[in-house]
Amino acid sequence: MSKYLELKRQAFEANMELNARGLVVYTWGNVSQIDRAEGVIAIKPSGVAYADMQVDDIVVVDLDNNIVEGAMRPSSDTRTHTHLYRHFDAIGGVTHTHSTYATAWAQAQESIPCLGTTHADYAYGAIPCTAVMSDAQIARDYEEETGVQITDCYKDRNPVESPMVIIAGHAPFTWGKDAAQSVSHAVILEEIAKMAYLTRTLKRDVAPLKQGIIDKHYLRKHGKNAYYGQS
Amino acid sequence: MSKYLELKRQAFEANMELNARGLVVYTWGNVSQIDRAEGVIAIKPSGVAYADMQVDDIVVVDLDNNIVEGAMRPSSDTRTHTHLYRHFDAIGGVTHTHSTYATAWAQAQESIPCLGTTHADYAYGAIPCTAVMSDAQIARDYEEETGVQITDCYKDRNPVESPMVIIAGHAPFTWGKDAAQSVSHAVILEEIAKMAYLTRTLKRDVAPLKQGIIDKHYLRKHGKNAYYGQS
Amino acid sequence: MSKYLELKRQAFEANMELNARGLVVYTWGNVSQIDRAEGVIAIKPSGVAYADMQVDDIVVVDLDNNIVEGAMRPSSDTRTHTHLYRHFDAIGGVTHTHSTYATAWAQAQESIPCLGTTHADYAYGAIPCTAVMSDAQIARDYEEETGVQITDCYKDRNPVESPMVIIAGHAPFTWGKDAAQSVSHAVILEEIAKMAYLTRTLKRDVAPLKQGIIDKHYLRKHGKNAYYGQS
Amino acid sequence: MSKYLELKRQAFEANMELNARGLVVYTWGNVSQIDRAEGVIAIKPSGVAYADMQVDDIVVVDLDNNIVEGAMRPSSDTRTHTHLYRHFDAIGGVTHTHSTYATAWAQAQESIPCLGTTHADYAYGAIPCTAVMSDAQIARDYEEETGVQITDCYKDRNPVESPMVIIAGHAPFTWGKDAAQSVSHAVILEEIAKMAYLTRTLKRDVAPLKQGIIDKHYLRKHGKNAYYGQS
Repeated sequence: MSKYLELKRQAFEANMELNARGLVVYTWGNVSQIDRAEGVIAIKPSGVAYADMQVDDIVVVDLDNNIVEGAMRPSSDTRTHTHLYRHFDAIGGVTHTHSTYATAWAQAQESIPCLGTTHADYAYGAIPCTAVMSDAQIARDYEEETGVQITDCYKDRNPVESPMVIIAGHAPFTWGKDAAQSVSHAVILEEIAKMAYLTRTLKRDVAPLKQGIIDKHYLRKHGKNAYYGQS
Repeated sequence: MSKYLELKRQAFEANMELNARGLVVYTWGNVSQIDRAEGVIAIKPSGVAYADMQVDDIVVVDLDNNIVEGAMRPSSDTRTHTHLYRHFDAIGGVTHTHSTYATAWAQAQESIPCLGTTHADYAYGAIPCTAVMSDAQIARDYEEETGVQITDCYKDRNPVESPMVIIAGHAPFTWGKDAAQSVSHAVILEEIAKMAYLTRTLKRDVAPLKQGIIDKHYLRKHGKNAYYGQS
Repeated sequence: MSKYLELKRQAFEANMELNARGLVVYTWGNVSQIDRAEGVIAIKPSGVAYADMQVDDIVVVDLDNNIVEGAMRPSSDTRTHTHLYRHFDAIGGVTHTHSTYATAWAQAQESIPCLGTTHADYAYGAIPCTAVMSDAQIARDYEEETGVQITDCYKDRNPVESPMVIIAGHAPFTWGKDAAQSVSHAVILEEIAKMAYLTRTLKRDVAPLKQGIIDKHYLRKHGKNAYYGQS
Repeated sequence: MSKYLELKRQAFEANMELNARGLVVYTWGNVSQIDRAEGVIAIKPSGVAYADMQVDDIVVVDLDNNIVEGAMRPSSDTRTHTHLYRHFDAIGGVTHTHSTYATAWAQAQESIPCLGTTHADYAYGAIPCTAVMSDAQIARDYEEETGVQITDCYKDRNPVESPMVIIAGHAPFTWGKDAAQSVSHAVILEEIAKMAYLTRTLKRDVAPLKQGIIDKHYLRKHGKNAYYGQS
């Protein structure tokens, strides 16, 4: 029996949850989870329909993108996932979607401003939009460079406090402590992106939420004095 | 057996109905109901998934926010609920959501104008948007002050005639004679907010409904000469 | 057994279909069907939930709005329905909804221009928006005058060729050869209204469809040389 | 037994899939598949409800629009389908819908610009909008001329690389290697059209995706060096 079975099972369940939440058209989107001790990730196979996917179709690759276990080709976005795991030590799962409203912001090549407490509860400050990829980057290694686009945004940002990003002209990536949380962040990002779209089209010159409320909401759910939830 | 069982059951059913109506993402949103004779309310526990929630998870607190019964921590918005029950004598249930279109208006920090009879049937005049919370209020007691933001809007407004409000930069609260009616008002507010969004983006300078029709529609469903429904 | 049973059954089925098509929030909306020989209509009772409604709850009223059969109060919009049946000889069913996009156009107080063949297949020319009701009309007989608002739009229009109308500041009415067709027209109007909303917000100065295509599409589905469908 | 049974079955399944994907209101939309060896296509009958349709209702016609097999009248859009099959040698299936967002772009009479990689993955460059049909064309043969409108757009375009088009003032057509793929292209077009609508209304002056990314994305899914999927 595979020593990666539990890892693969968690990646599989998270991919199925992403589909069940209605964020996926056909085979778009993929979720991975890392086993830091083993130095491997489990990720969706490329182009496989969710209805047909089995736990054993999940591919295990190391952080240099070599296949460790699995008969199928891993997601074509795998090199972006591994780039994120190599640079963000604290994350355990990554999700990529083309969810509709988040993708619209990516296509508009604009960061999503923090306009309300729904956003402030999950992401600290604006959800950043990366720079447009240069021709040199495209020629070099497109999927790896998509990762570079993301990590370039986090030189002065904490990936745990801002677990959502949109790639200019492309679509979002989210992450979390594990694959399941990265999926919930993808679901929440889509809702935040929709609310921000509606707000902006309702009132073009809307101001971001005041800093004091951003701090209050983020801290009531996160950090050592958090008082939301049951622990 | 708990003497609050029936109260808890009604709060539980109303919370489940809120989720069934599609107004909730994950654990967002909470509903409470009051027992005026006992001076207590029953409210959703904080951060519990709807699929897992049981009647016994509902928390009973008094109007000073002390837990009277229940093993879980009550909703982090409890202090806003109790503030409303203390100040609005005629209400029996309160609902808080982050429903998409109502939240967009809250984020735009604008009251929802009465643009049609759908709105006029349920809320008299514009659905007010509160002021933005001051830094002093945030520092003092955020959830209690959210209640103050609301009651400040009702100095010259009747909460029974206007059972819907939106908090600037945050989201809506609604209320009613009991928890179930507060939920139906949350559902209706979301539909009114969507219609108003569509109307405003279709025609930026649209005028509010004329006062004569506002009065006619509100009075044909409410007051002693109402002739809508079966009683 | 009631001699109106079949009429009531058809009105009942059409009301249930309206709800099943997702055009109804709670008890909003009502459908009727006429028996011209008997001079009566069957219509939804006022304020009754669709889930609870039975065939026997359908109310039969004559064209002067007197109850002929039924224990419940008929829809509060009954006088609008009977006004339409009295003035439009060729119609057999009437539907009233507050469907979202059609209502947004009503609230914007604008006729829905014919922007494409989807519209042209079902309604000839713009879908008219009535005038705003005068104070004198509101005081006189609100629901009867809602009918007057509609028939005023049809002095130079054929109700069979234009079976959809929106009431300024209110919502749509549709009709057809029977209750079932009036419901399908309500469903189609909502889709036409949504498409027109999207088109207008995408391109503010969009021109109506050219007259030659309007004529072509209407005539390929209607009239003696129609060639759409199976007969 | 019909020698066209398998062809009819595939056309039937594709029509049912179109409906299951939520792209159809009532009987709107139709799908066909060609058998190049036999010189015939199988297509949906005109105006038949999806819930009632059987495999045997599918109509087989030759490329001159003569019925070869079937008791029903074929789709009123049949002449557009056969025009496409006669002019685009490489296609095996055609789908026509009035899907909401793609139709809005058609009504706005604008091509859908390539704003992101979701679009670039499936269609190379803008999705073209045809010219408005001339009065002479309408008088001549409306459905055949709808085909001419499309093929006129492909004088300098490859139909395999751009399998989606919108007809000015009307709605989209898509195609693929078979009926099933033409349906998936219809589903994807609707999503692309929605994303482009949201992007454009969010930011009026948004620029198309840079050419280097368009090329990269199209080529990673198509052509001899493609590396998306499992073969």
